[in-house]
Amino acid sequence: MPRHPSSHGARTRGAIVRAAADLASVEGLDGLSIGRLASELAMSKSGLFAHFGSKEELQVEVLQAAASRFVDQVVRDAIRAPRGRPRVERMFENWLRWSSLPELPGGCPMVAASTELDDHEGRARDELAGMEMQKLATLAKAARLAVAEGHFRPDLDCEQFAFEEIGILLAFHQAQRLHRHPQAEARARAAFSRLLADAQAAA
Amino acid sequence: MPRHPSSHGARTRGAIVRAAADLASVEGLDGLSIGRLASELAMSKSGLFAHFGSKEELQVEVLQAAASRFVDQVVRDAIRAPRGRPRVERMFENWLRWSSLPELPGGCPMVAASTELDDHEGRARDELAGMEMQKLATLAKAARLAVAEGHFRPDLDCEQFAFEEIGILLAFHQAQRLHRHPQAEARARAAFSRLLADAQAAA
Repeated sequence: MPRHPSSHGARTRGAIVRAAADLASVEGLDGLSIGRLASELAMSKSGLFAHFGSKEELQVEVLQAAASRFVDQVVRDAIRAPRGRPRVERMFENWLRWSSLPELPGGCPMVAASTELDDHEGRARDELAGMEMQKLATLAKAARLAVAEGHFRPDLDCEQFAFEEIGILLAFHQAQRLHRHPQAEARARAAFSRLLADAQAAA
Repeated sequence: MPRHPSSHGARTRGAIVRAAADLASVEGLDGLSIGRLASELAMSKSGLFAHFGSKEELQVEVLQAAASRFVDQVVRDAIRAPRGRPRVERMFENWLRWSSLPELPGGCPMVAASTELDDHEGRARDELAGMEMQKLATLAKAARLAVAEGHFRPDLDCEQFAFEEIGILLAFHQAQRLHRHPQAEARARAAFSRLLADAQAAA
């Protein structure tokens, strides 16, 4: 009998999810073939199924792992910046960096999943839609704090601000990954400067 | 021997591409299984392969068919509006309508393909990247005409304008299809109004 059966199980499960996330980053969540994953991990298919009852369960865990990495690298780091405009700016910069991380060979897994899952009802879609709404809420909250600090104008529509910020990030993702456009970052920063200027409180 | 072998062949080929486009709209280009398509069309797999030598060839034709539908419905219609700001506005409105067309059950096939193919080198990726660059160029050209007409300010960066317009359209696509957000159109229009106001020539 192993000494730490549950922690051993958790380690294996974590290793499976990490390998699955790498594969999904390039092949999409639907490309998560249990057979291919088993061969990459040198496990049997039945061994994999002992950890995950279904492909959908694995997809949900891959999404949750991506979201928790995102919160660490984009949100938690930004919270160290002072409230208000500095935090809004830090979050945007972290987000730009996020989709170029070497650990994400296929770019942001949630952007990729978004167009893949939008027409497929189920737990994975619900999970992803919830996460993306949460991101919008996080951006809107940072903007509201900037209003409270007096950095942004009091009549700013913070949900609209978040919608437009996401648009810039999506256009950046496409320009960088599909077009491989050398000016992708510069364009994204110029767009964001315009958004910030419009949100700015009167001096 | 059939009387019109080539036109009969063209008709069949067209029917295959239309069925493939419907399937890809929901399942993605990678979900274009030759087997499933053959059964939907009540054709043999070998019959299908006689028309398309490979899955990639079929993917390229599906993309081309989507692009030609897009040009018809979004671009050609907008060119009927007067040059300048009216044409820029009509193109944006047509584009919003485009991703809600009943013939596109899975939304814009090019948006979906964009995150699917970005990491997959090959003809389908090249074709798509070319199309998306073409769209940016079309939006930038419409903005340049608006500068020439005196509707937009002379120092407007028209490529930047196009980048930001695409961002609004991508955020709209996500809000509408993934979040099913009732305010998706209103948010997109408000963002575009802000972009137009910034581009506006001094009165």
